[in-house]
Amino acid sequence: MSILDTINEPGDIKKVDPADYKELAREIRSFLVNNVSATGGHLASNLGVVELTMALHLFLDLPKDKLIFDVGHQSYTHKILTGRKDRFETLRSFGGLSGFPKTSESDCDAFNTGHSSTSISIADGMVKARDLMGEDYRVVALIGDGALSGGMAYEALNNAGRFKSNMIIVLNDNKMSISENVGGMAAYLGKLRTNSKYTLAKSSLERGLSAIPGIGDGIVDKIRNSKNSIKSLFVKGMFFENMGITYIGPIDGHNIPLMLEAFEAAGRSKNPVLVHVVTKKGKGYRPAEVNPRMFHGVDPFVKKTGRAIKKGGEKSYTDIFADAAIEMASKDERVVAISAAMVDGTGLSRFRDYYPGRFFDVGISEEHAVTFAAGMAKSGLRPIVAIYSTFLQRSYDQILHDVALNKLPVVFAIDRAGIVGKDGDTHQGIFDLSYLSSIPGLTVMAPKNGAELREFLGFALQHDGPVAIRYPRHKATRKLEAFDAPVEFGKSEIIRDIAPLTVFAVGRMVKVMDEVLDKLSEETGVSGGLVNVRFVSPIDTETLLKAASQATHIVTVEENVRRGGYGEAVSRILLENGYKGRFLDISLPDEFLAHGSPNDIRDSIGFDPDSIYEKVKDFQKS
Amino acid sequence: MSILDTINEPGDIKKVDPADYKELAREIRSFLVNNVSATGGHLASNLGVVELTMALHLFLDLPKDKLIFDVGHQSYTHKILTGRKDRFETLRSFGGLSGFPKTSESDCDAFNTGHSSTSISIADGMVKARDLMGEDYRVVALIGDGALSGGMAYEALNNAGRFKSNMIIVLNDNKMSISENVGGMAAYLGKLRTNSKYTLAKSSLERGLSAIPGIGDGIVDKIRNSKNSIKSLFVKGMFFENMGITYIGPIDGHNIPLMLEAFEAAGRSKNPVLVHVVTKKGKGYRPAEVNPRMFHGVDPFVKKTGRAIKKGGEKSYTDIFADAAIEMASKDERVVAISAAMVDGTGLSRFRDYYPGRFFDVGISEEHAVTFAAGMAKSGLRPIVAIYSTFLQRSYDQILHDVALNKLPVVFAIDRAGIVGKDGDTHQGIFDLSYLSSIPGLTVMAPKNGAELREFLGFALQHDGPVAIRYPRHKATRKLEAFDAPVEFGKSEIIRDIAPLTVFAVGRMVKVMDEVLDKLSEETGVSGGLVNVRFVSPIDTETLLKAASQATHIVTVEENVRRGGYGEAVSRILLENGYKGRFLDISLPDEFLAHGSPNDIRDSIGFDPDSIYEKVKDFQKS
Repeated sequence: MSILDTINEPGDIKKVDPADYKELAREIRSFLVNNVSATGGHLASNLGVVELTMALHLFLDLPKDKLIFDVGHQSYTHKILTGRKDRFETLRSFGGLSGFPKTSESDCDAFNTGHSSTSISIADGMVKARDLMGEDYRVVALIGDGALSGGMAYEALNNAGRFKSNMIIVLNDNKMSISENVGGMAAYLGKLRTNSKYTLAKSSLERGLSAIPGIGDGIVDKIRNSKNSIKSLFVKGMFFENMGITYIGPIDGHNIPLMLEAFEAAGRSKNPVLVHVVTKKGKGYRPAEVNPRMFHGVDPFVKKTGRAIKKGGEKSYTDIFADAAIEMASKDERVVAISAAMVDGTGLSRFRDYYPGRFFDVGISEEHAVTFAAGMAKSGLRPIVAIYSTFLQRSYDQILHDVALNKLPVVFAIDRAGIVGKDGDTHQGIFDLSYLSSIPGLTVMAPKNGAELREFLGFALQHDGPVAIRYPRHKATRKLEAFDAPVEFGKSEIIRDIAPLTVFAVGRMVKVMDEVLDKLSEETGVSGGLVNVRFVSPIDTETLLKAASQATHIVTVEENVRRGGYGEAVSRILLENGYKGRFLDISLPDEFLAHGSPNDIRDSIGFDPDSIYEKVKDFQKS
Repeated sequence: MSILDTINEPGDIKKVDPADYKELAREIRSFLVNNVSATGGHLASNLGVVELTMALHLFLDLPKDKLIFDVGHQSYTHKILTGRKDRFETLRSFGGLSGFPKTSESDCDAFNTGHSSTSISIADGMVKARDLMGEDYRVVALIGDGALSGGMAYEALNNAGRFKSNMIIVLNDNKMSISENVGGMAAYLGKLRTNSKYTLAKSSLERGLSAIPGIGDGIVDKIRNSKNSIKSLFVKGMFFENMGITYIGPIDGHNIPLMLEAFEAAGRSKNPVLVHVVTKKGKGYRPAEVNPRMFHGVDPFVKKTGRAIKKGGEKSYTDIFADAAIEMASKDERVVAISAAMVDGTGLSRFRDYYPGRFFDVGISEEHAVTFAAGMAKSGLRPIVAIYSTFLQRSYDQILHDVALNKLPVVFAIDRAGIVGKDGDTHQGIFDLSYLSSIPGLTVMAPKNGAELREFLGFALQHDGPVAIRYPRHKATRKLEAFDAPVEFGKSEIIRDIAPLTVFAVGRMVKVMDEVLDKLSEETGVSGGLVNVRFVSPIDTETLLKAASQATHIVTVEENVRRGGYGEAVSRILLENGYKGRFLDISLPDEFLAHGSPNDIRDSIGFDPDSIYEKVKDFQKS
């Protein structure tokens, strides 16, 4: 029997002989690689925190104590240690185990997370609640160095510094967000790590503590040696100390006894303490160690080689965007591109290869990314900001207040719009049409296929004002390429002539509705009209009213929640203009959508092509 | 002739004899107090930066160089120095001078700002654009210590630290945001200021520079004196130095020659430099020096005493909210309140007096404020987060991802919803119904009068899920108090029975529409129905469909932009349910609305009661 076999519920790890920790870590890594190679999922980050998670579980008393995972995709070992290892075969599938902490899965998951840089704020709130309610439990926020570049982490540190109460922030420093980590903070952490003679190599935490300014002895003598060493000594942890937070570290994040010692020391403090732990992303699986970026979030792969099982095929929207951005940058020197720590995911790694001086990875800083672009646009450049739909939610105010109010020509390339699938409710891109369309002066577009994405990007880069283009994850369809009307501001494209039944479809739904109408024609003889909306904002009122004057049945279709979406805006125009026909708004329900393959999710909510076909068939008879 | 009389266009200040700077500063202060006491506006912050603005104008070459004001309400002296002093009588009035930088007013205004903590991101972008385009101008961000607690300022610093190019950040440290500044960063700046023997008192910047670690001589000897002084010496500027930004300061922000020296030294650097300037808010006008919070944004006041001219009268929604929050906290120990640096503006200063241990001012940190509340709610408290509508835009993702997705009972008290008036386009609260209503599970409410606000808060605090209550600035109406149906989840309130013409009105528009319908009845004999919507989300579909079955003319009225608002959602429901009558959506145009009194703004867009009356009268005949 393996050691892992003895771990079946929270606390079981405490029964393991310390001499066996290394073997248990090895078994967990093997379990992770076996499972993730079959299911896909986040690998490199999880391999990096095996010992760290074990040490936290040895230190904490779960579920009484609260462990908050920042982002949360690094919680696999935590799930294994809390009675969920039998469910890993279902990881990220519909109805299966989530890839993120879920309070509905286990009371050892203290909070549902997914976006970055939230854990310290959550922990701040839990510490205050604990103290006010006179309760007694530990609160630990586990945050990566990448997430620490997010502004809200700083806001939370700034506030935690005032607390006179125990709270532990574990900084998991693996020198990366998804891409290599960037910025002043990353450079600072690098200095702390490099300065390793002071603590990293030490087996005793006491000697580590002695290096904290004002605590240790003999410091004054040490620092006389040279100005440089003075500086590096005092640099140590001072950033956090300046914020009012006690700093311990750096600690080897693969050495369990050392981490336990550090956590216990931190636990005795009457103040917030940050424990700086250094880990290696991808640790123990060579392909992931060598290329942690590739093993951030992966599809199923061959365990031995690390190669993806999935075959290529059609280009993704991401690829088409990246090609188009490079092409347009070659024609216009003003074109620059910005990513917030998603250099590969957005396809911009290739842009960076072509135009390193015109590419900017600002780290996990979606707010800054947008206003940085606004400053560039104001000074004459043509920035493209590529951020996933779900993360762009962070930039809502910056888009409105810094870009749109200033009428600046910033292009938002919004990947992962619509149902994204396996990352689940925290990551679905199903709100963007709602939160973007009400921003005055912001043009909102969605392409029907890959070719149109390219055209839209060209249009956006010459448009005198901000433009958002939203497109889905996954392969781009090549269907309907014969329809290539020139892109004209605010004008939709007719795919099938307006008819008594006319469908207005947004983005990827154009192709779906084209097929639905084919089937309808075949099975019922009814030929429907089809309009490729192109511009969700502003709405092509002229075409809409033309349809209203001819159609008896109008349908809108969009992969976005209903509230605030395209369909509602259309219905207002129709109704105010005296449309007396029937109307059907096909959109996503106003709820969060759990993880699973996109098609499984669509099936579950009746948004799959067959369900939509039935709806339209019934509707046109009504 | 005064010296101020000689200042008529950008650069004129450079012709002033340095011996006259003090007199000019005195004249500017006198001008500010004279004007702002008559027009109202931001006073304390502007009095604090008179010399700082003069020094920046002496240093810079405007409009070639770019000066970015963070927030921007401290730009009055800048406006005086750039040819706009003759327009101060119109300050903040409709069509008059804006209280914030406006690129449309002057090419010396480099960017339109209003919200906090954006200036460094904008400057980052401008510096990159300048360098890429091979241009040569200075970029200066002027940011307060309050704004520095905002996360996006940190994100921008984190990125600026990598730049190998000149950029100047002037930190205007007056120890305050609007309230006293809070948090670890504020404490840190306090230490820098206290450590004044090193630079503040020095007349030569060279000696200031010698105190920067690694630069000056004799440091090692000095630091041997005591551990404490070592620490405080090395604390100096190290926070910024750690981020990769050269630190100069602290400098007396009322000493022009000293500041000029510092700016010129900063200007010679090939890297980003932060110049830490210490100023006194309200300087030179005793009532504002003594109580800068009261003179942050003011209505017209008596110059001699500083007392407001305006009389009291009805309570404001803010007062009613504050009273109700205190009352509910007295009944339920779990109730706590959170403000993001708007302790007075939200009315929570009184809550703090009653329950200091249950009140939290997190500083300018709207993102953190919301997720902090989420953590508290998850651990059993009942937090009320009070943030103005416009600033809550910053928290969109936190409301969605941390509160709503976790189904947590956080109450959002959203003051300044609708048209706020004199602060203008950056501050209007006209988007909240759009951006909030599409968040699943978030209940969105708007009270018709002050009494209802109190009831709604009581409802929200016992509701099992997040609730947002939006209410306007200014006095609360006491009209319609006879209508006090118990608040029931998702149910609207009938004010006038459903009739062929029925109006669904949101919040403050209920009273307006009641009067409009009175007038309609008097003048045309038509008696309209009136529904107090109460719940903008979820919509009371039952009452709506009942109206649809009886009415021939349905009107929705809301003080929010049209797109994504209540009216669109209603029209979708009506149309899908086969409503064949007429429909009118009375809402704000989908555009930014400039400054002016709320009524002047409403007049200008046809949203005043008379215009609405005409619209409804015409509509019911259609």
